[in-house]
Amino acid sequence: MSILIKGGTVVTADQTRRADIYVEDGVIKAVGLDIDAPSDAELIDAGGQYVIPGGIDPHTHMQLPFMGTVASEDFYTGTAAGLAGGTTMIIDFVIPSPQQPLMDAYKQWRGWAEKAAADYSFHVAVTWWDDSVHADMGTLVAEEGVNSFKHFMAYKNAIMAGDDILFPSFSRAMELGAIPTVHAENGEMVYQLQQKLLAAGITGPEGHPLSRPPEVEGEAAARAIRFANVIGVPLYIVHVSASDALEEITRARNAGQRVFGEVLAGHLLVDDSVYRHPDWQTAAAHVMSPPFRDKKHQDALWRGLQSGNLQTTATDHCCFCADQKAMGKDDFSKIPNGTAGIEDRMAVLWTHGVNTGRLTMEEFVAATSTNAAKIFNIYPRKGTIAVGADADIVIWDPEATKTISAKTHHQNIDFNIFEGMEVKGLAAHTIANGKLVWSNGELRAEKGAGRYVKRPAYQSVFGALEKQAELARPSKIER
Amino acid sequence: MSILIKGGTVVTADQTRRADIYVEDGVIKAVGLDIDAPSDAELIDAGGQYVIPGGIDPHTHMQLPFMGTVASEDFYTGTAAGLAGGTTMIIDFVIPSPQQPLMDAYKQWRGWAEKAAADYSFHVAVTWWDDSVHADMGTLVAEEGVNSFKHFMAYKNAIMAGDDILFPSFSRAMELGAIPTVHAENGEMVYQLQQKLLAAGITGPEGHPLSRPPEVEGEAAARAIRFANVIGVPLYIVHVSASDALEEITRARNAGQRVFGEVLAGHLLVDDSVYRHPDWQTAAAHVMSPPFRDKKHQDALWRGLQSGNLQTTATDHCCFCADQKAMGKDDFSKIPNGTAGIEDRMAVLWTHGVNTGRLTMEEFVAATSTNAAKIFNIYPRKGTIAVGADADIVIWDPEATKTISAKTHHQNIDFNIFEGMEVKGLAAHTIANGKLVWSNGELRAEKGAGRYVKRPAYQSVFGALEKQAELARPSKIER
Amino acid sequence: MSILIKGGTVVTADQTRRADIYVEDGVIKAVGLDIDAPSDAELIDAGGQYVIPGGIDPHTHMQLPFMGTVASEDFYTGTAAGLAGGTTMIIDFVIPSPQQPLMDAYKQWRGWAEKAAADYSFHVAVTWWDDSVHADMGTLVAEEGVNSFKHFMAYKNAIMAGDDILFPSFSRAMELGAIPTVHAENGEMVYQLQQKLLAAGITGPEGHPLSRPPEVEGEAAARAIRFANVIGVPLYIVHVSASDALEEITRARNAGQRVFGEVLAGHLLVDDSVYRHPDWQTAAAHVMSPPFRDKKHQDALWRGLQSGNLQTTATDHCCFCADQKAMGKDDFSKIPNGTAGIEDRMAVLWTHGVNTGRLTMEEFVAATSTNAAKIFNIYPRKGTIAVGADADIVIWDPEATKTISAKTHHQNIDFNIFEGMEVKGLAAHTIANGKLVWSNGELRAEKGAGRYVKRPAYQSVFGALEKQAELARPSKIER
Amino acid sequence: MSILIKGGTVVTADQTRRADIYVEDGVIKAVGLDIDAPSDAELIDAGGQYVIPGGIDPHTHMQLPFMGTVASEDFYTGTAAGLAGGTTMIIDFVIPSPQQPLMDAYKQWRGWAEKAAADYSFHVAVTWWDDSVHADMGTLVAEEGVNSFKHFMAYKNAIMAGDDILFPSFSRAMELGAIPTVHAENGEMVYQLQQKLLAAGITGPEGHPLSRPPEVEGEAAARAIRFANVIGVPLYIVHVSASDALEEITRARNAGQRVFGEVLAGHLLVDDSVYRHPDWQTAAAHVMSPPFRDKKHQDALWRGLQSGNLQTTATDHCCFCADQKAMGKDDFSKIPNGTAGIEDRMAVLWTHGVNTGRLTMEEFVAATSTNAAKIFNIYPRKGTIAVGADADIVIWDPEATKTISAKTHHQNIDFNIFEGMEVKGLAAHTIANGKLVWSNGELRAEKGAGRYVKRPAYQSVFGALEKQAELARPSKIER
Repeated sequence: MSILIKGGTVVTADQTRRADIYVEDGVIKAVGLDIDAPSDAELIDAGGQYVIPGGIDPHTHMQLPFMGTVASEDFYTGTAAGLAGGTTMIIDFVIPSPQQPLMDAYKQWRGWAEKAAADYSFHVAVTWWDDSVHADMGTLVAEEGVNSFKHFMAYKNAIMAGDDILFPSFSRAMELGAIPTVHAENGEMVYQLQQKLLAAGITGPEGHPLSRPPEVEGEAAARAIRFANVIGVPLYIVHVSASDALEEITRARNAGQRVFGEVLAGHLLVDDSVYRHPDWQTAAAHVMSPPFRDKKHQDALWRGLQSGNLQTTATDHCCFCADQKAMGKDDFSKIPNGTAGIEDRMAVLWTHGVNTGRLTMEEFVAATSTNAAKIFNIYPRKGTIAVGADADIVIWDPEATKTISAKTHHQNIDFNIFEGMEVKGLAAHTIANGKLVWSNGELRAEKGAGRYVKRPAYQSVFGALEKQAELARPSKIER
Repeated sequence: MSILIKGGTVVTADQTRRADIYVEDGVIKAVGLDIDAPSDAELIDAGGQYVIPGGIDPHTHMQLPFMGTVASEDFYTGTAAGLAGGTTMIIDFVIPSPQQPLMDAYKQWRGWAEKAAADYSFHVAVTWWDDSVHADMGTLVAEEGVNSFKHFMAYKNAIMAGDDILFPSFSRAMELGAIPTVHAENGEMVYQLQQKLLAAGITGPEGHPLSRPPEVEGEAAARAIRFANVIGVPLYIVHVSASDALEEITRARNAGQRVFGEVLAGHLLVDDSVYRHPDWQTAAAHVMSPPFRDKKHQDALWRGLQSGNLQTTATDHCCFCADQKAMGKDDFSKIPNGTAGIEDRMAVLWTHGVNTGRLTMEEFVAATSTNAAKIFNIYPRKGTIAVGADADIVIWDPEATKTISAKTHHQNIDFNIFEGMEVKGLAAHTIANGKLVWSNGELRAEKGAGRYVKRPAYQSVFGALEKQAELARPSKIER
Repeated sequence: MSILIKGGTVVTADQTRRADIYVEDGVIKAVGLDIDAPSDAELIDAGGQYVIPGGIDPHTHMQLPFMGTVASEDFYTGTAAGLAGGTTMIIDFVIPSPQQPLMDAYKQWRGWAEKAAADYSFHVAVTWWDDSVHADMGTLVAEEGVNSFKHFMAYKNAIMAGDDILFPSFSRAMELGAIPTVHAENGEMVYQLQQKLLAAGITGPEGHPLSRPPEVEGEAAARAIRFANVIGVPLYIVHVSASDALEEITRARNAGQRVFGEVLAGHLLVDDSVYRHPDWQTAAAHVMSPPFRDKKHQDALWRGLQSGNLQTTATDHCCFCADQKAMGKDDFSKIPNGTAGIEDRMAVLWTHGVNTGRLTMEEFVAATSTNAAKIFNIYPRKGTIAVGADADIVIWDPEATKTISAKTHHQNIDFNIFEGMEVKGLAAHTIANGKLVWSNGELRAEKGAGRYVKRPAYQSVFGALEKQAELARPSKIER
Repeated sequence: MSILIKGGTVVTADQTRRADIYVEDGVIKAVGLDIDAPSDAELIDAGGQYVIPGGIDPHTHMQLPFMGTVASEDFYTGTAAGLAGGTTMIIDFVIPSPQQPLMDAYKQWRGWAEKAAADYSFHVAVTWWDDSVHADMGTLVAEEGVNSFKHFMAYKNAIMAGDDILFPSFSRAMELGAIPTVHAENGEMVYQLQQKLLAAGITGPEGHPLSRPPEVEGEAAARAIRFANVIGVPLYIVHVSASDALEEITRARNAGQRVFGEVLAGHLLVDDSVYRHPDWQTAAAHVMSPPFRDKKHQDALWRGLQSGNLQTTATDHCCFCADQKAMGKDDFSKIPNGTAGIEDRMAVLWTHGVNTGRLTMEEFVAATSTNAAKIFNIYPRKGTIAVGADADIVIWDPEATKTISAKTHHQNIDFNIFEGMEVKGLAAHTIANGKLVWSNGELRAEKGAGRYVKRPAYQSVFGALEKQAELARPSKIER
């Protein structure tokens, strides 16, 4: 199957130019003016439209078993919804239970993901520590193309990684050339505040943000960043929601440390008033961690994106429907944490980022695709439009509009945190692996069409860090 | 016994003025020009000299049982050495072993301290947690005049307070109107780095600072500050040695948080090259935690004092002689941690602070006495020269000089970290509790003359914090 | 005349304690428990009330000739209104026209001020430069008790001081031991923006804040601070209204520089929406420079006060009535700049500062009185309650309430920027120079009772700066 | 002429990969593995070497008439020396005398540049202001491919641009889609300090840095950044030498402002002790503005490069020989300002940046070439290795070494500020416009081979800024 995209304006993180694109066998074969294509190539007229790399969502949780239930969106429905929104790849998470061998969990998730409609990869969480974990990390890097390990600093008494896990795991990642990532919330503080609030009779969703104030996130970010600096390993902080954490990232980056930050579409646009909504279901539907924040944090996050102190945008797509959320009816700490967003991320970011002048189009592409590809070392196979790259391409119509709604979205959840938001700028066509899977409102996602993407170790920044570490090796004084 | 100090220039934290001072029964009875005094009053001619409040060292460890030995300086010798240097009060530490009831430990230390030659008080450390600790904290505040509780964030597998102790203890302190204090070093990081260094064959004192890099301190400071902010309690950070921690304090203070920082004379003036000294004993003699730092931190600490982001100066006076230090001959992590300084603090701070123009004389007084008195709520009984205040007074000779040396100091230790330093500005006379105990080189310290000083709860800043907490009380949403 | 204040709680910047106060001949004669007083002393019952130092407003413009008119409040009416609100001293400004000899202007203002009902002093503005200005600065310091010189960085083509005035004037102040102060707004930027806005047809008061965005203030603050640092002189920045300027002050202070910041009651509590008020008169009544700001700046300013990065509160009291404001009917740049506030400053600061827990009572006293007295070197004559101090005392009733209104205020202006604000905490009695001039709603201000207060040079901080400058003297290399 | 580069590792700002490169007619025709090339193509074996984009030096002054003399390096010799070091393009400066029409000056410089051996372009300085300057800026952008205008904030009484020039010129640049650039030093402060130092008898080169302390640079940077923010135009700050300026850039960038910073190779590696060299000639040879700084600034600048807060590296190549420097024998302010470096920039940056692990190779390419190309809008014609780009290519030998010396360099000056420095990593071959002009030590630079490069307006960042400006347009209130 081959496709010729004609007349569009190609936007990458680097530049914007008029160019046609020819795709064959899942790969971009030509980019240029007046390309010749076989007569049987499918023709897409991109006149007046932008042609951009397919979005990469580096933070999703499809069919996640969590807090006593399982996320409603599976790998097929979730990736399909992504395609409808212009996202052509996800990086999901393997999350071993404490004591579960990492390789076991990894295989479990690989199995679940086989039905995915778009390409996918996995971060693997380190939720406990012993020699087998140390060994499995090595195997995952060497044989399975895993180059990132996740650490939950929250969720005490469950999957929380304390300092005694963070240090050896970060150290092991350094040896392997893999990047540690953290969910930055101090689990002890959250636990204590939950007890305090419940004891005070605050059991509704309004207790959720009160149990996870911005300091909880700032603390954990500060801690992880210091650990990474001492060990000499780069660090990626997922879902930065508060200026407290952003300031820690900014401080470290300004000092030359290699720290990266991800921001969720939701945190950029939804504020914490939702938790005080008089309707319990509505309030509960917004429960995720870190919680939505006071509006002043949104302003800070946008500035973080503009400045490049935050590099990637994601969704933490993790769907729980009303009946699942109801598990926490009498205790906010039991409401399954998670909200959806994979379908809407690119449209809301374009609307509130590019249309407002906060971001240039090139910066939009970097933040939705290229930077994730670089940090997780799948660039330029993913994340750009260039000869030889995977044909994950979106034809973006800057004039198209819609009103976001759970009634019309393709996500397998009964709620949408952007409900009622008017967006301008939408994926008119999505090409994944060289196939046209979304076209003017028609979704042609194919179960199992997605491939597992291996990500090699030693991202570019490791080069510099390794050399620094080598030069800084401590030496014994002979006395 | 009564004393008339004539012709001096009285310097307090507030102002500098010509005034005589009349002292009777241990208390200042009059301050002013041309005071009439009984004819039998002892006369001290303070012409050409400054008359300042006696120094308060808020951080000492006399005869501390630690790391398998006991500090060589006891409460008598240590306070006597302090008097020779112009320090008339110490705040030492009660440090319960884990599981030891706080009240037991408190009584133990009270007993040891009875021989003190100068007034003293105690911070009490919280090294473990259960309901009895919670209760004993209440007793100590209500009945024993303790208004500060110490937490060691370092010393894993010994007295380290993890997050699960910090949170309830800080919360309890808030309820009681007492201020939590922390030794800010991440004990887990230290432990892991020690293992790594020893494994790499680095067993000498040069391993000590490598196992406690500035990030270790910055991390812990950042964590404690966030805990305090969430709980709404003021916080005091002892022995700030690194710009990493100072920056955290500064950030919090700039945002209006009530955080205080203490700096040691040693950290202001000694740098980490000492640990690479070819003589093991010399290197080991400098082992204390946090370690001495690269010179750039010294510049930052001075700026912290100038700006008021650091309020107090102390010594962490904790003496171990050469034979004690030798316990760590083959493993730096076993060298007893501690250095001396109580006798030299004021002279080195005057020399390098006032004589260089970094500090005004008023700021010197604030940093050596007044601020400690205010923060620990014994002002204006201590920390100033005013009618009604305790007669703890130093007649300071700005022209006097000496060369610091272990050979001539009064401290009960065989080493001096300031050895060979020329100082200009010395205590010519020290009056403690109305008695002349140091005069032109003669030390008249009296065993047991020191009194235990009770410190009431609810320092001034609690007023504002309590009101803020009350106004910020979270509320339940009725649905 | 003598007064005995009984049963009150005395609050100073240092401490809070129960004490009576005895006043005679305009001076505080005794402070303590159970003071004996002559039987004919007037007795004030201060039970349940706080007894605090009289407020000092370090920034007023009584009967100022400005922008073609003269401020409606004269030295008598203005100081009288101050007494009604608990302010017992002002520091006003002598503002020479360019080319007017400083001594001439100084004498002119001294004449105008003779009718003042409360004590006063003068900052003198340097609005131009030649040798006579240099000489007159010396005379003012040596003979007239002036220790502060003001520089308007705004008002191009009028009284603006460009870099070529700032540098020699700051240098001269350094020599004299006087502190330079600045109105920090970049006059060129203001001028250009005014032209641009008027050209765009924006002629109403809404143009005022648009012509003076926060960057205009941040820029000038940054510039003045750098000049002061290079010259080695302390600096005082008047009416800090924007976080942009506060951040510059904070940065410099954190680095140990001696920079001080003043904040106006209005900037703490009024936001810039007033300029878009549909009623022209209302909008115009708020025109002052720097303008009121977006609410986020208010939060920053409060934190500045809490942290001590801002030390003083003032009003820039400068009254223009509706007919005067009307001069700018067709051109916002011609609206006389100024608003009132001297009567309300202390009540609004107590209400929004102390009652909310942002400030302790001690901090309130420091911010309304003590810090100004210290910075401008009239402490402890002013700014505290102590034996020997001027008897400028306020008996503050923390339970008293009122609604602020132009209809009831004592200020000679037809508008009040705090109109309708409920305040809780008011001056029940004001004693100035030992006389009861305000008592339970009765104002007994006496024309001409105020005295000119000389302020000696070489504030405390100069000590340190001079020594630093001396040590840092550049030296020639002999080649 | 065609060239095939075989076996090398191609490094761009984006990625590192094995690839061959085929060049024909001055343009890159193919990049990939196993490229077929015509048999007559010149073959370059790049085995074991890196193939990188030719360096761009965005800051040179060839044959500049300045301070009464003319720089010794002309456009031919200077560009030739650049080619020997791997720099294939310069952006020089047109600097009109005050009152000289911009177009006249532009034509003058174009004439001088015709003999250049490498491609070149021009920033045009705005040194005065009237309607003709306004008009000429338009012409230069529309017709001559100028998209950057330079402003000297220093050099009072010569080419200094005061606020009254900066504001209209920045505004005009905004209209035109051109980027303003500034030499950030406060000319008034420099002037006053020069007078003061000379009056104090300090006439030697040691006076140079004393007359231009870091605050002078920090102030100007802060001012220009605020002007740019108010006007809504991006800004480029040349030769950032002090942390004071870097911190201003960092602050602004963190807040999302589009500010760019350039650093000179010299400021990264030479410190201010050179000005106290006992040999006058040596000291004078280092006189340039801003001056070399204390070592702590070097550390900050490196961190600026690592963090991306500084984007470009340059040299400010401006050569004056000993006899020219002698003009300031009796007055340091008369020593012609300027030092050389175009030949050494890339080697010293590789040695001290890449070899030490501070920078990755990709970051090195960005900092020496790509970022300049992007900011000045000649990317991807320049600044990368891609099909269609100009064939400006360097084959970089990471193992080659040399000792830098004026005796062996190709620069037309008798001094080298890096004299004696060992570098490892050198240009083995340089290809400019498709021709091999430097090969293993042989320089084949051709006079006049360089072309003038037009740079279109509206760099990418203008997109976002224009939209922001449009949305933020102030509106009149109808009353």
